[in-house]
Amino acid sequence: MRRALGQLRSVGLIGAPFSKGQARDGVQLGPDLIRTAGLVHRLREQGCEVKDYGNLTFEDVSNDEPIGNTKSPRAVGRANQQLANAVQRVKSDGHTCVMLGGDHSLAIGSIHGHAACGSELSVVWVDAHADINTPLTTPTGNIHGQPMSYLIHELHTKIPVLPDFSWIKPCIAAKDIVYIGLRDVDPGEHYILKHLGIKTFSMTEVDRLGIAKVMEQTCDHIFSKVKKPIHLSYDIDALDPSVTPATGTPVVGGLTYREGVYITEHICQTGLLSAVDIVEVNPKQGRTEEEVRSTVNAAVDLVLSCFGRVREGSHQNDYKMPEP
Amino acid sequence: MRRALGQLRSVGLIGAPFSKGQARDGVQLGPDLIRTAGLVHRLREQGCEVKDYGNLTFEDVSNDEPIGNTKSPRAVGRANQQLANAVQRVKSDGHTCVMLGGDHSLAIGSIHGHAACGSELSVVWVDAHADINTPLTTPTGNIHGQPMSYLIHELHTKIPVLPDFSWIKPCIAAKDIVYIGLRDVDPGEHYILKHLGIKTFSMTEVDRLGIAKVMEQTCDHIFSKVKKPIHLSYDIDALDPSVTPATGTPVVGGLTYREGVYITEHICQTGLLSAVDIVEVNPKQGRTEEEVRSTVNAAVDLVLSCFGRVREGSHQNDYKMPEP
Amino acid sequence: MRRALGQLRSVGLIGAPFSKGQARDGVQLGPDLIRTAGLVHRLREQGCEVKDYGNLTFEDVSNDEPIGNTKSPRAVGRANQQLANAVQRVKSDGHTCVMLGGDHSLAIGSIHGHAACGSELSVVWVDAHADINTPLTTPTGNIHGQPMSYLIHELHTKIPVLPDFSWIKPCIAAKDIVYIGLRDVDPGEHYILKHLGIKTFSMTEVDRLGIAKVMEQTCDHIFSKVKKPIHLSYDIDALDPSVTPATGTPVVGGLTYREGVYITEHICQTGLLSAVDIVEVNPKQGRTEEEVRSTVNAAVDLVLSCFGRVREGSHQNDYKMPEP
Ligand SMILES: [Mn+2]
Ligand SMILES: [Mn+2]
Ligand SMILES: [Mn+2]
Ligand SMILES: [Mn+2]
Ligand SMILES: [Mn+2]
Ligand SMILES: [Mn+2]
Repeated sequence: MRRALGQLRSVGLIGAPFSKGQARDGVQLGPDLIRTAGLVHRLREQGCEVKDYGNLTFEDVSNDEPIGNTKSPRAVGRANQQLANAVQRVKSDGHTCVMLGGDHSLAIGSIHGHAACGSELSVVWVDAHADINTPLTTPTGNIHGQPMSYLIHELHTKIPVLPDFSWIKPCIAAKDIVYIGLRDVDPGEHYILKHLGIKTFSMTEVDRLGIAKVMEQTCDHIFSKVKKPIHLSYDIDALDPSVTPATGTPVVGGLTYREGVYITEHICQTGLLSAVDIVEVNPKQGRTEEEVRSTVNAAVDLVLSCFGRVREGSHQNDYKMPEP
Repeated sequence: MRRALGQLRSVGLIGAPFSKGQARDGVQLGPDLIRTAGLVHRLREQGCEVKDYGNLTFEDVSNDEPIGNTKSPRAVGRANQQLANAVQRVKSDGHTCVMLGGDHSLAIGSIHGHAACGSELSVVWVDAHADINTPLTTPTGNIHGQPMSYLIHELHTKIPVLPDFSWIKPCIAAKDIVYIGLRDVDPGEHYILKHLGIKTFSMTEVDRLGIAKVMEQTCDHIFSKVKKPIHLSYDIDALDPSVTPATGTPVVGGLTYREGVYITEHICQTGLLSAVDIVEVNPKQGRTEEEVRSTVNAAVDLVLSCFGRVREGSHQNDYKMPEP
Repeated sequence: MRRALGQLRSVGLIGAPFSKGQARDGVQLGPDLIRTAGLVHRLREQGCEVKDYGNLTFEDVSNDEPIGNTKSPRAVGRANQQLANAVQRVKSDGHTCVMLGGDHSLAIGSIHGHAACGSELSVVWVDAHADINTPLTTPTGNIHGQPMSYLIHELHTKIPVLPDFSWIKPCIAAKDIVYIGLRDVDPGEHYILKHLGIKTFSMTEVDRLGIAKVMEQTCDHIFSKVKKPIHLSYDIDALDPSVTPATGTPVVGGLTYREGVYITEHICQTGLLSAVDIVEVNPKQGRTEEEVRSTVNAAVDLVLSCFGRVREGSHQNDYKMPEP
């Protein structure tokens, strides 16, 4: 059944071809690859209205020296400020926002811009990694491993000043976050997650509970008090490298394609999905065309399931059965 | 334990090298490939009696113009009439019938011939697709996407007259059907499934419930009143393309090998399995020999599990432990 | 959380480059391959003390004629006597013993040496195969399919005398054994398992119950009376060939990487793990470097999870969050 949701689903699409939150070339090609695989057409086919806001253009930043360990802070800061403004506009235009990355540092701007619309948000973060290092705990210095730390109220005092980051105000409460898919978490990240009592479903919990109970408990957690709009931040590396190999930091033992899609089907059915990030698709990390194709197709399917595609099929409310 | 079932299990094998229910060459090679992989020998090894009725021979049909959208109606109609007669004979000889396809349009003849023996049947349809389009709803015109529509009492008035289809009388009630594995269902099909209240376990339900509960509920459903003989119609594309890639219309996100086998193990244990179709193995769709091998081996394993193979192993009731 | 277990975990590592329990060359390369993949370093990184006792050296045995069907009895008998002594020493030095095979016939020496320390043991045997044939039931004559039969009290009268096996005294009770992952069990083995009432979770039970319940019930079974030290004997072929193809007797339909790791995480958390075998990694059975790499990495990850690695991450008890 299409459940008459088609008209409720107006999608605003933003491409963010940005890669400076990490070291590997190629992740900036994500937005156009995902479009070329037919995303807009297929969203419309399933009854969504889609407005494509196109790709953001990011200017080169010269003399972007590291601050301590943290690389390319100015490029990341400025790109995310642009993205925050763009997301805020998409939201104020009344759409559910879909941000196609690019690397996961873009969650800073995407969530910040989403939160700027006024309402408190829940964040469902689907990822092999927690991406919650601070500039002082990061082992790599890549900001795609840090975005959450800038956004959480409770971490505000732990974050040093970075150039072009002054526009960022923490906007998410630790209790409003759920992680799914974790299996490569740094010690400092683990300390933060436990210290702040953040709800996490690592792959161990996915194995123990099964994905259906994980999603029930995810919704129990984020809906325990008020029902806030959901920001779904989906790192493609949450899925197993056998499904989505074309990504920069693959980790064995990930979600199956089916589990990955189940998550989006379930979030869709809450009726509260307000913004989605799909990040870290990197075609240059695929060893074959088939690996790239599989990764991109999974990304497309995740977005489609966020907007009403269900595996049992669907039909229009006014469907008339043809007779001989 | 072999559970003394060997003697109850007498298998009658029919090959149906037919491909005109769809467009891809190669699926007619299925029966001999599956035999060559050792099916008969391995069935006997596990205690079954096997009578191989050989392959049916289908004559070319000239001037087989489409009727509306629907392709090759005369070829499909005549082939299935032959198959129906052959299945009826196998059943009246007292065997559990195994029909090796060929494409899934052959379910018309297989189920029709099975039902002709007099008893009402339950149908368990394991497939990525519902194969329940009518000639008026079909988006492709391929009859392998339509067989169920000709067989269901409740759809009788929706089916136009096709040449060489007049021998077909609907023989299955909507309430006696269970689908497992759906993930690519056309709008008209979805309307029919919902409208007739047919029990379906799409991949979403398999993910939510797990395969064990799916099989419990499948049997609860078909055994809710009388215990009817079971017709198991197994499309190899129900399994994930990583397991059975050599098939004409693969769809991502399918059953694992283990789930696929669990279904047959469970059906076997009901003691009510009366006929099995294994269809849509197409070696020309495999990109490598390994892909063909994996697909064919899965097909063989499914049949073996239908007839008593269990993964924990087994031994003869009169097994005597050798002593030094 | 590291749970302050680091100091409790002192690992004694023994390599056993032995292959005469089966016919395929290459499995003797397992210990050094697993070491080269960084096992010792990574165990230390996660807080374990590690003493590497190096590899055993096995002398050639000339005139090692089969006894009945059973091949290389003298080589297997002597190698295992050496291993038993080595394991006993590692245990008396106070370590948890990790034995890297080599083929699974080495479980004779590993379990025997472990049991020689005095306490009764529980054995958790993770394998596609039961490895419980006697020299009189074995279809292949390979002793890697027989080790359990020499070790179980209840089978003592079924075992003929073999040269260089006289040092072996049965040391395990049938009730103290749990099998996980079975899917290729010979008739004689099945008779023994049923006759002795040994607890087994074949892949059918893993499918039915899920790995979490399997591990709960495993621990319920082995802890039903006294809590005995656990000997975990892990055949890498328990995992699916898509994960660990580089092994001598792969069988389709195996444990996923995640299920395989879940088993070790759970056993670790009992606090009773006393010895581990990792066997049957055979690089010459891999068709590509990637297949070998995947197999070896899985072996490493299983050992790491035996000794405290958890997928949610961990941090030192005294971790101090850096502040700006
Ligand atoms: Mn990630
Ligand atoms: Mn990420
Ligand atoms: Mn199909
Ligand atoms: Mn079909
Ligand atoms: Mn084995
Ligand atoms: Mn073994």
